[in-house]
Amino acid sequence: MKSNLLCDIGNTNFSFSDGKKISVEHFDISSLDEVVYYISVNHYWEKRLEAEENWVNLRAYINFEHYYESMGIDRIMCCEAVDDAVVVDAGSAITVDVIKNAEHQGGYIFPGFKAMAKCFKDISVRLDVSFNFELDLATMPKNTEDALSYGAIGPLVTHIISLSKGLPVILTGGDAHKLLPLIPQAVIDQELVFKGMKKIIQGQA
Amino acid sequence: MKSNLLCDIGNTNFSFSDGKKISVEHFDISSLDEVVYYISVNHYWEKRLEAEENWVNLRAYINFEHYYESMGIDRIMCCEAVDDAVVVDAGSAITVDVIKNAEHQGGYIFPGFKAMAKCFKDISVRLDVSFNFELDLATMPKNTEDALSYGAIGPLVTHIISLSKGLPVILTGGDAHKLLPLIPQAVIDQELVFKGMKKIIQGQA
Repeated sequence: MKSNLLCDIGNTNFSFSDGKKISVEHFDISSLDEVVYYISVNHYWEKRLEAEENWVNLRAYINFEHYYESMGIDRIMCCEAVDDAVVVDAGSAITVDVIKNAEHQGGYIFPGFKAMAKCFKDISVRLDVSFNFELDLATMPKNTEDALSYGAIGPLVTHIISLSKGLPVILTGGDAHKLLPLIPQAVIDQELVFKGMKKIIQGQA
Repeated sequence: MKSNLLCDIGNTNFSFSDGKKISVEHFDISSLDEVVYYISVNHYWEKRLEAEENWVNLRAYINFEHYYESMGIDRIMCCEAVDDAVVVDAGSAITVDVIKNAEHQGGYIFPGFKAMAKCFKDISVRLDVSFNFELDLATMPKNTEDALSYGAIGPLVTHIISLSKGLPVILTGGDAHKLLPLIPQAVIDQELVFKGMKKIIQGQA
């Protein structure tokens, strides 16, 4: 049995469950005539695809009582994918969500590492460094590079670990691998969005 | 006995121990002929004041073996002021330093709240909010405003509290009052820089 084709539409790319990634600028709707289940944080494309019969927007199947209206649909799908976990999606922003007994307990948003580096640089040219992810978080820093790296990483990682008592930490997103060595109970799952989408589709079947 | 006049020169203001604050643009050296002990993070003024006999730069009296070369001189003075404390200077950046037995254990740098708000806004216009400092940090947020406020405040505050086991937390800087209600063991001391400077001067007497 062929599995459904899923698509996660961001502001930059169409990411498909078969592994294809196509830039939003170069995407040609007519290239696909099979049914595609999708989510989109990209308002333009979400609107544009409404007219396409073979594109099914999963937003309609979300129970928003469990979430809040302005919460990113990709973030919701990651939460749908798990029953008990701390889910960390580390991209341009880092979202941290707690799910217990398949219920979203809430979550917060932290700047992504690229945004954080730019933030320090905007405060002062003297704070323009690359972060050191090999940092020992048990030792307080004694130079500028480590002091900034620690600020970008330490409070966040310490907080995630404190949230995860008894819960696994599931990392996803482009910077997941940077956090992995810093959080003992963490695993990476880059398929989390698609897993959540599959669960939603199965719930409708 | 008249106490020494102290001055903390920043990028924006000359701040004097008698309470006067004068913009760096409007400061007139000839307006003061008494001895002024000063520190400066402002390179232009630090250089400019070298030629003035009545201006004494306290940088020369710092033992840099206890700190690191690029550490801000105002941050060093705050550390000099205490023997055992977590010192948090909340301004354009937020510095967190641990001092035990009058020795600097190290410290880190976190974006100030204004910089953090700009950082979120730069990531996405949808993340453009004012932070809610009345947040209950024990409850995970369920709306965008609280999710961003929690990200800016929660990991930092939780980390400061975890550092402070047995140590008082001393807050200084323009945003100290925002952190005060969130950290049970915290007190505000807006004279910390001058207290450190006084200690340095006494050590030389």
